Amino acid sequence: MMPKNQNRTSHKSGLAPGSLVHIGDIHHPNTQLTLVNYNQDHWEQRSLPSIDEALKYRDEDSITWVTIEGLADPSIVEFIGEHFNIHPLVQEDILNTNQRPKLEEHEDYLYVVLKSLTPNNDQFDIKYEQVSLIILKNFVFAFKEKTDSLFSLIEKRIEIRHGRIRNMGSDYLMYSLLDIIVDQNFAILDQLDETLAALEDDIFTDPTPQMLEKIHQIKLEVIKMRRYISPVRDLTANLLRNESKIIEPSTHIYLRDVHDHVMRIIESIETHRDILSSLLDIYLSSVSSKLNEVMKILTIFSAIFIPLTFIAGIYGMNFKHMPELDWKWGYPGVWVMFITIATSLYFFFKRKGWV
Amino acid sequence: MMPKNQNRTSHKSGLAPGSLVHIGDIHHPNTQLTLVNYNQDHWEQRSLPSIDEALKYRDEDSITWVTIEGLADPSIVEFIGEHFNIHPLVQEDILNTNQRPKLEEHEDYLYVVLKSLTPNNDQFDIKYEQVSLIILKNFVFAFKEKTDSLFSLIEKRIEIRHGRIRNMGSDYLMYSLLDIIVDQNFAILDQLDETLAALEDDIFTDPTPQMLEKIHQIKLEVIKMRRYISPVRDLTANLLRNESKIIEPSTHIYLRDVHDHVMRIIESIETHRDILSSLLDIYLSSVSSKLNEVMKILTIFSAIFIPLTFIAGIYGMNFKHMPELDWKWGYPGVWVMFITIATSLYFFFKRKGWV
Amino acid sequence: MMPKNQNRTSHKSGLAPGSLVHIGDIHHPNTQLTLVNYNQDHWEQRSLPSIDEALKYRDEDSITWVTIEGLADPSIVEFIGEHFNIHPLVQEDILNTNQRPKLEEHEDYLYVVLKSLTPNNDQFDIKYEQVSLIILKNFVFAFKEKTDSLFSLIEKRIEIRHGRIRNMGSDYLMYSLLDIIVDQNFAILDQLDETLAALEDDIFTDPTPQMLEKIHQIKLEVIKMRRYISPVRDLTANLLRNESKIIEPSTHIYLRDVHDHVMRIIESIETHRDILSSLLDIYLSSVSSKLNEVMKILTIFSAIFIPLTFIAGIYGMNFKHMPELDWKWGYPGVWVMFITIATSLYFFFKRKGWV
Amino acid sequence: MMPKNQNRTSHKSGLAPGSLVHIGDIHHPNTQLTLVNYNQDHWEQRSLPSIDEALKYRDEDSITWVTIEGLADPSIVEFIGEHFNIHPLVQEDILNTNQRPKLEEHEDYLYVVLKSLTPNNDQFDIKYEQVSLIILKNFVFAFKEKTDSLFSLIEKRIEIRHGRIRNMGSDYLMYSLLDIIVDQNFAILDQLDETLAALEDDIFTDPTPQMLEKIHQIKLEVIKMRRYISPVRDLTANLLRNESKIIEPSTHIYLRDVHDHVMRIIESIETHRDILSSLLDIYLSSVSSKLNEVMKILTIFSAIFIPLTFIAGIYGMNFKHMPELDWKWGYPGVWVMFITIATSLYFFFKRKGWV
Amino acid sequence: MMPKNQNRTSHKSGLAPGSLVHIGDIHHPNTQLTLVNYNQDHWEQRSLPSIDEALKYRDEDSITWVTIEGLADPSIVEFIGEHFNIHPLVQEDILNTNQRPKLEEHEDYLYVVLKSLTPNNDQFDIKYEQVSLIILKNFVFAFKEKTDSLFSLIEKRIEIRHGRIRNMGSDYLMYSLLDIIVDQNFAILDQLDETLAALEDDIFTDPTPQMLEKIHQIKLEVIKMRRYISPVRDLTANLLRNESKIIEPSTHIYLRDVHDHVMRIIESIETHRDILSSLLDIYLSSVSSKLNEVMKILTIFSAIFIPLTFIAGIYGMNFKHMPELDWKWGYPGVWVMFITIATSLYFFFKRKGWV
Repeated sequence: MMPKNQNRTSHKSGLAPGSLVHIGDIHHPNTQLTLVNYNQDHWEQRSLPSIDEALKYRDEDSITWVTIEGLADPSIVEFIGEHFNIHPLVQEDILNTNQRPKLEEHEDYLYVVLKSLTPNNDQFDIKYEQVSLIILKNFVFAFKEKTDSLFSLIEKRIEIRHGRIRNMGSDYLMYSLLDIIVDQNFAILDQLDETLAALEDDIFTDPTPQMLEKIHQIKLEVIKMRRYISPVRDLTANLLRNESKIIEPSTHIYLRDVHDHVMRIIESIETHRDILSSLLDIYLSSVSSKLNEVMKILTIFSAIFIPLTFIAGIYGMNFKHMPELDWKWGYPGVWVMFITIATSLYFFFKRKGWV
Repeated sequence: MMPKNQNRTSHKSGLAPGSLVHIGDIHHPNTQLTLVNYNQDHWEQRSLPSIDEALKYRDEDSITWVTIEGLADPSIVEFIGEHFNIHPLVQEDILNTNQRPKLEEHEDYLYVVLKSLTPNNDQFDIKYEQVSLIILKNFVFAFKEKTDSLFSLIEKRIEIRHGRIRNMGSDYLMYSLLDIIVDQNFAILDQLDETLAALEDDIFTDPTPQMLEKIHQIKLEVIKMRRYISPVRDLTANLLRNESKIIEPSTHIYLRDVHDHVMRIIESIETHRDILSSLLDIYLSSVSSKLNEVMKILTIFSAIFIPLTFIAGIYGMNFKHMPELDWKWGYPGVWVMFITIATSLYFFFKRKGWV
Repeated sequence: MMPKNQNRTSHKSGLAPGSLVHIGDIHHPNTQLTLVNYNQDHWEQRSLPSIDEALKYRDEDSITWVTIEGLADPSIVEFIGEHFNIHPLVQEDILNTNQRPKLEEHEDYLYVVLKSLTPNNDQFDIKYEQVSLIILKNFVFAFKEKTDSLFSLIEKRIEIRHGRIRNMGSDYLMYSLLDIIVDQNFAILDQLDETLAALEDDIFTDPTPQMLEKIHQIKLEVIKMRRYISPVRDLTANLLRNESKIIEPSTHIYLRDVHDHVMRIIESIETHRDILSSLLDIYLSSVSSKLNEVMKILTIFSAIFIPLTFIAGIYGMNFKHMPELDWKWGYPGVWVMFITIATSLYFFFKRKGWV
Repeated sequence: MMPKNQNRTSHKSGLAPGSLVHIGDIHHPNTQLTLVNYNQDHWEQRSLPSIDEALKYRDEDSITWVTIEGLADPSIVEFIGEHFNIHPLVQEDILNTNQRPKLEEHEDYLYVVLKSLTPNNDQFDIKYEQVSLIILKNFVFAFKEKTDSLFSLIEKRIEIRHGRIRNMGSDYLMYSLLDIIVDQNFAILDQLDETLAALEDDIFTDPTPQMLEKIHQIKLEVIKMRRYISPVRDLTANLLRNESKIIEPSTHIYLRDVHDHVMRIIESIETHRDILSSLLDIYLSSVSSKLNEVMKILTIFSAIFIPLTFIAGIYGMNFKHMPELDWKWGYPGVWVMFITIATSLYFFFKRKGWV
Repeated sequence: MMPKNQNRTSHKSGLAPGSLVHIGDIHHPNTQLTLVNYNQDHWEQRSLPSIDEALKYRDEDSITWVTIEGLADPSIVEFIGEHFNIHPLVQEDILNTNQRPKLEEHEDYLYVVLKSLTPNNDQFDIKYEQVSLIILKNFVFAFKEKTDSLFSLIEKRIEIRHGRIRNMGSDYLMYSLLDIIVDQNFAILDQLDETLAALEDDIFTDPTPQMLEKIHQIKLEVIKMRRYISPVRDLTANLLRNESKIIEPSTHIYLRDVHDHVMRIIESIETHRDILSSLLDIYLSSVSSKLNEVMKILTIFSAIFIPLTFIAGIYGMNFKHMPELDWKWGYPGVWVMFITIATSLYFFFKRKGWV
């Protein structure tokens, strides 16, 4: 099955730039807001009934991280845009879930958008979720399409003071979120490895058209995956080159680590594309090998019995004057002929390596 | 069907550079002129009987946007060229509808030329229209081959003061026009998605040579589409790097948005090329699978009946001395042979997985 | 047919660099010299009996354009080299007609070499001619392999004062010559379009091995064409970047125009390569489709008649005790069997979609 | 067989960055520590019972090289990290054996990670081992997954004062280690050459599906090999550009030598990929050639005997009035027909070049 | 046949860098030394009994060119290295005949290594010889693997004062040597052209598996050739950019000429790769066309005679009650049926275009 409606900006193409409308599938009618506020000494996590409660943290000397899950309500994005001075086009991009992964550097904040890929258990069928991050000096907004536990590990780490996260700024939080999203891809690639290994064994033992269909489906998924991952390389490379005041020099080494992971993922995807095209070659040539085998059997049967049938046909003729028919050893003689011809043809095919 | 006469500059190759002749299909014998004049406080839209009426807006402190639909009359381009100081080669390029998309920066104006792609309803058959824009400080000329409603949404937006367009300069108007033209491609890509999904299902269920022809036609369209879109990437990238006084810094973020859309479109086209070549592989291997099936049936029939026919032939021989013929159980015995051979061959083929 | 002897420098590889010998096919034993001298007020065109007559124009304040048609006589090149201070290696390159298109900037002159491609009427078979240009401040030498009317349009334009050519320098003359040579390719591409469109129709209706041969031949021509055009991109790009005193700033926009045309030609060639490989795919799969059809007919005939022949064979056996043979309705009964088997197999194949 | 679990970072994706856990297969439960200390006058090599004994060499004026074989014990890495001021992320990377080859430049040290490839004797099945190097001014730590004799040649060279190694710094030691690791690939490529040469001969004489499987396996190995070698090019190029105080100018020429070797290896891998795809083409077309041969034999047998059988069938008919049956020369006449038809068909096929 | 042992550095991988051992095939057990000494006024050429005789020319004010043919004796390289201050790694590279073509710029000299390709007469089988050049201000050392007449033309040119060589420095001599080596490739490409043209004709008339093998062999040769030529592009480009004091500005134009030749050779190689893959496509589809033809003949024979044989079988049945058998015109009637069926099937196949 082909991916559907990947390009849905088109439904909006009549609107003026900057009109806030959610574009994409609505996964959740309600929007869920979670706020985490922390610094070295202090920690607080709570569910927000409405976005305006986040405002009072604006001027505090701590890191505030607000996760917005569900994009059905544009007014939340609008509210944040207004009070944190976010450019209208960025607001629009957050609500349009068909973005290319990218980094935008604005005067007071960074805007990062990328896709979170989640594997499905049984089939090689990936779920895509767009995650937008707005990183200010002491605030991080994370916009997600769905309610899931993607970031719960980081919430935990902040809570239990695990690692350095409590001692560092919003840039390190951004890094942690990127790291979680990027590393999910390794699980998908592991699953892809297993799927391909199983498929390979099947193709060598018994190729069926279903496998062709499966190769095609995996190919489409890999193409789609590559499409969403390869711009992330530019994203992280740009973060590394970035000289905005939001990113501290000490965070650079962590971002380089994410960049390395992205490179590994992209190389692995390229490797899998090569393997898939190799599998297709094998499938095709297994099919021709099978055709060859079928044809050999047909040829052996035909080539052995057609001459014999002809001989039988000869002595089935009704000519008056056929001396052989009256010979005493005529019939056994014909059998000798039958057996001689059949065995010599058998050995002829054996010498050719067909039987 | 192959695209015809894409390269028609050749018909002009004998003329001196700068001779104004319209090159390309004539879609409209008449030229239609529409003028929109606006600033923050004022708005006016009217049809112009002739191009010289546009002149009186030249020195006004407002944005004037003139749309010229139909290129059959070179004198309009010549008139504009003379009064707005447009280089003769630019005039020539406007009239030649076989241009590559490009941006040219001149001292007082920018010249932008690109293709507007409109989907056709039923078939995947795209209509191409060349749009040339000349952007001066307070004037925008838009030259189109045909009369259609491509820009009517922007006219509406200016009229009803929707968005920021009334507060901004000619560069923002240029952005709005580019945005409309670029975003049309998303509709085409959606349609392409649907066409490919339908084709894919058909190929897996019953591949016919018509599908091959369809794959080929879509391929040609995608090649053509890519040819007209991929230079737009350079165009928008050049706009972003551009330091002309016509483009205000505040418009940069909007141009970056268009550039992102172009990038998404190009990536999507590349994805579709991959999918098309995958579909071709599937078509080809579906055809070989069918051949395999045909050959199996032939082989099963031949391999079962040829030996039986041979046996029947034996007892059709007219030898005098054939003891079996006189046996009481000869005929039933032969039937036992027939059934034994047929069933054992049947099980042989069943074990091979052919039946 | 493969292109022959493309690399003939080898015949000279023993000579010292700078030895003047003509390398390449000799198209004309005689060399024809044409001189055009012009400025804003004055025009003169004449055939030169020998090259030394060109010398007297050397210090005049007008543009002198000498066309040398036919390269059989190295002494002409040597004479020009000596009196206009042309580097020996350039002289050598002019006489060797296996050059890559290139631009060389020397202190007092530019050296441009490229291929002029002329279509042949009937077949898609291109004629290649090497054109070398030496552009000095007030002199242009054009060296051609053959006598033809390639530049006659420009001679005409100078004579009748058409366009700006009489008001401009030797750089504009160079541009005019390049423009004529480059734009010839559009005619070839139009012809290629038509050839491919015809071939495509033929392949879909009735693929023959001759078409394969034709695809191959066109491919070779396109490969060759690309080989001679793609370095021209660098040539024109270098001209645009060039800061020599010979090229006036006002000529830049014209050179950019030529560069755009070269880009369009290269993109068109790439498109045609894609189309050719798509045509090959279609040819191959049309051939397999035909094989499939042949096999279906064979299978239908065999599968229907082989069982029937077997049944006829049964009742052709000569067993004494075959009760069916004595039945009154035996013979009609066998016919009922024949018809039943044949029709049910027919419907079996119909259900499979083979008939 | 597909490579398994190449992407195993995923198992760690829940941990905070900087948590030290060994990721990868554990090849050795115990860790073995070897220390070599040398300068121009002095040499010492010994096995360390625990890593803290290395500390006392820290401030000495000699080169100390510690090899850590086996990564099961993270506390060793942690100890080194603490006392030599190694960044936590580097410590983490050392323990994770799924790294891309890379160079990281830190303030006081360089971190180099790459894969050592060891050929297996019989099959083309490469063993991969990750080697991490930390190069300080007078210390080099080499972390290896396994205990093997990879570096024993360099230990020997230091001991017996062979070459310049005793006179030079830790950068030259790094070069020596890189050189050993990179040059191992030549042995693998030699083995690959031999395997491909043998495979090629086999394919031309008798292609079997096993060869297809072998081509596929070698392809997977080459893809994997390329994946681990191609980033080494960037690594060595970065070393050459590197301006850290650790690398002396005099070592540059040695590093350039390693870089050249890496380039040769990568080019050789690309060549082998080309050869592999050429072998696949040959395999496929050998299979079709065989099918052709099979079909020819079938066609010859069928086409010769089917008409003969028909003629025999005619004279097997039981019509009352068949004059031929009573002719004296009827039977010999039929034999003449048989032989005439058979020989003329034989010559027909001979003329076609089938027999 | 696969190229053997291309990567033989591995045999040395245990040695310390800088150990002088000859690696590669030994073509000549003896080393032959030739010295040419010249300036504008003077010329001398002689065979040297041992390398130390070259020393006395070291401080003379003339160009000395020493050719060392045969690399079996490392002491010669060592001697030169010592007295002309050549870096040990360069000495090592000279003796290892598996180098990539490269340029190394050292303080007092340039080191150039590349492959000389010599065509073999009959087959397309190229001989490779490594040539290393060391260019000092007034000395040139040329190291060759074999004794041949590669450079004899240049020796001649120096002797008879042909061209400028006697007036110029060691850089011009280097250019002359490079030029000879590079231009040899044109002869190989001409030979390749002829081989491919012949092969192409053969494939279209009668494709045999031997041609496939030949395509494969030529492909391997072209891959190998490309591998040794494509780094020469970087080599000559680096020479052009080079600012060492050894290369005079006046030599630049000559080096640019060599660079152009290398570019032409590389483009020609790429063209030949395209042609080869096109030939493979044609071979494969010629094979399928032949299969098609075989199948058509089989189908025509089978489809015509199988129904006829069935009819003959019917009237061979022994039913008591078969009225047709007793009809007077039964037998001729059957013949009418035979002929009617055969001719209508014949016309059916004719209409399909099979006969």
